[in-house]
Amino acid sequence: MSTPTAFPLPGSQGTHLLGEWYGCDFSTPTLNDLDTLRTICLFATGDAGLEVVGDVFHKFKPQGVTGTVLLAESHLAIHTWPEKKFTTLDVYVCNIREDNTAKALKLYNSLKEYFHPQGENFSRVQRGRKE
Amino acid sequence: MSTPTAFPLPGSQGTHLLGEWYGCDFSTPTLNDLDTLRTICLFATGDAGLEVVGDVFHKFKPQGVTGTVLLAESHLAIHTWPEKKFTTLDVYVCNIREDNTAKALKLYNSLKEYFHPQGENFSRVQRGRKE
Repeated sequence: MSTPTAFPLPGSQGTHLLGEWYGCDFSTPTLNDLDTLRTICLFATGDAGLEVVGDVFHKFKPQGVTGTVLLAESHLAIHTWPEKKFTTLDVYVCNIREDNTAKALKLYNSLKEYFHPQGENFSRVQRGRKE
Repeated sequence: MSTPTAFPLPGSQGTHLLGEWYGCDFSTPTLNDLDTLRTICLFATGDAGLEVVGDVFHKFKPQGVTGTVLLAESHLAIHTWPEKKFTTLDVYVCNIREDNTAKALKLYNSLKEYFHPQGENFSRVQRGRKE
């Protein structure tokens, strides 16, 4: 990511966790159920100490659920492809009042436990810059 | 991003555009209006040829709007901090049936035009891998 040193303007520093999970266990059919996945996401968000301000989920036919949880700290986004045993997760938190990175990692890891992926891509991106 | 070569499992390749916009023009107050920003996002999404399957937006007090648009192709997420003249945008599209990267770039750039940022961080991340 380029750093716009030519633009010393205010911003907001944040942490974005990006995960791709391969070989997920969808044998438990509830993970392909919209209400269940939504409940899991909302519970895990609150359990991590992050604040929900809205959410929207959608179920594809014949399978796959996609959803986002809006946070006071930014957002969570999850997309599942049961036919490929594949899931992606984004957790993005701004760090204005405090560093929320530990909470984001807790949320990421708690959701990952539900999917039991056999393989993972994980990256952590700093959004913005410290003022 | 690490490549999990030890896990030759199916996945789904996608393109994720991450932007941070500094020095945004919030002098037009409508950009800090939930309904207006939502309308702009939904219009730009359709205009780019992407399919909306849901959305949720939230307005903070005293200012700032945050929102996500769920796409058949994945998601858009936008967060604004008018007090810092700062905005972040995520556009993530999967490329299963076709390569949606050009549509994602069109959506990113059309939304950017509304904010007239004086500075920008931009990165493009490949999610998953080609099968």
